[in-house]
Amino acid sequence: MTAEFDLIARIRAHAAAAPRRGDVVLGIGDDAALLQPPVDQQIVVAMDTLNVGVHFPDDTAPGDIGWKSLAVNLSDLAAMGADPAWCTLSLSLPGADAAWVDAFLDGFGALAAVHGVTLVGGDTTRGPLSVCVAAHGFVPPGQALRRDGARPGDGVWITGTVGEAAAALAQWRAGSGPVDAPLRARLDRPTPRVDVGLRLRGVASACIDVSDGVVADLGHLCSASAVGVELAIDALPWTELLRSRFDLDARRALQAGGGDDYELCFTAPAAASSDVAAIAEATGVQIVRVGTVVDARGQGDSVRAFDADGVAWHADVRGHEHFAIARSDRPG
Amino acid sequence: MTAEFDLIARIRAHAAAAPRRGDVVLGIGDDAALLQPPVDQQIVVAMDTLNVGVHFPDDTAPGDIGWKSLAVNLSDLAAMGADPAWCTLSLSLPGADAAWVDAFLDGFGALAAVHGVTLVGGDTTRGPLSVCVAAHGFVPPGQALRRDGARPGDGVWITGTVGEAAAALAQWRAGSGPVDAPLRARLDRPTPRVDVGLRLRGVASACIDVSDGVVADLGHLCSASAVGVELAIDALPWTELLRSRFDLDARRALQAGGGDDYELCFTAPAAASSDVAAIAEATGVQIVRVGTVVDARGQGDSVRAFDADGVAWHADVRGHEHFAIARSDRPG
Repeated sequence: MTAEFDLIARIRAHAAAAPRRGDVVLGIGDDAALLQPPVDQQIVVAMDTLNVGVHFPDDTAPGDIGWKSLAVNLSDLAAMGADPAWCTLSLSLPGADAAWVDAFLDGFGALAAVHGVTLVGGDTTRGPLSVCVAAHGFVPPGQALRRDGARPGDGVWITGTVGEAAAALAQWRAGSGPVDAPLRARLDRPTPRVDVGLRLRGVASACIDVSDGVVADLGHLCSASAVGVELAIDALPWTELLRSRFDLDARRALQAGGGDDYELCFTAPAAASSDVAAIAEATGVQIVRVGTVVDARGQGDSVRAFDADGVAWHADVRGHEHFAIARSDRPG
Repeated sequence: MTAEFDLIARIRAHAAAAPRRGDVVLGIGDDAALLQPPVDQQIVVAMDTLNVGVHFPDDTAPGDIGWKSLAVNLSDLAAMGADPAWCTLSLSLPGADAAWVDAFLDGFGALAAVHGVTLVGGDTTRGPLSVCVAAHGFVPPGQALRRDGARPGDGVWITGTVGEAAAALAQWRAGSGPVDAPLRARLDRPTPRVDVGLRLRGVASACIDVSDGVVADLGHLCSASAVGVELAIDALPWTELLRSRFDLDARRALQAGGGDDYELCFTAPAAASSDVAAIAEATGVQIVRVGTVVDARGQGDSVRAFDADGVAWHADVRGHEHFAIARSDRPG
């Protein structure tokens, strides 16, 4: 089918112009990619799809879609402590728009270059706009960061700041004014915390990336580790812009339940706090302690949030509603 | 997001009920899968998406969609001579329909079980029905079947029969009568030729799977190998049902250009014909010689087809139109 082949040729040319890892025996252009795995490493594989209107607003620039589709997968690798290596891309498009594809590949390639990732294969098909990426990385045996190692007494830390991506979405949905550019940038071009993840090997007892929201994702970690977490809601790190735009209740809800942050949330023995500080120093990424691992409380909410005065904070936080990016309620 | 989590739990439970390969350190349930690659093997990765109305008719049963989404990827591994091992699945669904997902997983799992493939990860999202699968397999270094090794004088062989899937699609599009069940089965439940692919290591000089149509896919092989092919159009193997339903011209067009066959088309030195016969015997899969590799003819059609009398056969064969599965012209 001619259109598909032309797009593949375009992707192949784009990939050929980028540096290629030495362990890629055969990249785009055959029935499948042929790869030489490293000796004495395990392979970490993540795969996530982004659909228009679900995972990104329909006015998202193609370069941002390209960046984000790789970023969410590299974030999963970071949460495992994996060193990224290869990726494949399956791109469904309503039509064969060469300019759109070029812009998409520029965004995708920019992030791939940051982390030395080689695009080795995939396909293009006609369909509603949808991007599926599989990312592959390496980790020494026994050193992967998992969700199931948190123990009562461990501290809970989080990288960067949370709530900005959800804030951008809230502004976009409301449609009553412009979306603040720094917030929109957090939604469109998340930063996978690959370097922090690598340095957390041997330090973190459990780790997850924040895609569904801090409370929801910590809940997954608690479930896997059979523990609970007491979360200091007001310790969640914010930007001044976020504080200036939303009142306290709204900000807490965005930060605890917003999602799409792609920060790392991890646990570690309390004694590891100096190691954590050293990682923050070495990477230039803020890392803040936001809670403590406690015994599991049986069925029910495993994550309990408290404000700075120790008062329990309850909000209807059910995790980020990926299914609900629409602004049908917008005036325009 | 609750619906997504419920579906993931369903997929996880389904995967947990199937046998799990010993090299899967961590399957579904963490941020990514953790896998132990074999020593001294290369890794082959294929990734293909199926979209409703593009790669399968909208009345396709969910179990068939599950089967086919894995089959097209295993077919790519077969074309590389790879031994399948792991797969990931990204499933976009308009809604959270548990019965649909169960049926889908039954079809997917049935084929996975045939080849000992373990589902290790992926995601579920809301969106128009779309299935993306990445399949991983192994091959000893230097033994992968590629597209670029065909040499003038080599014979060209094809497994099974071709044209039935396209015939089913033609009947479905016409809508004037029932689609013959054996034809529809070829469209819905293709058989990846994994065992043949494994045995072609060291025998075939080049190999490709027939997804876009014999002429189009042989064209890709010719392009990669810088050769031409003379194709005996009437040597393409058919079923009696196909012959009984379509006249000679229509059948030739379906067989040479139809696509979705997922047979292997490969080249090998003429002296390898006894090896090929032995592979057919061992696997129970018919393998027929259908042409000869010749010198490249420069730009233009690299595949020339001739009938049994040596008369050139020309048809407007541009490869399978994956973009065009619709029956808007159907009466009903």
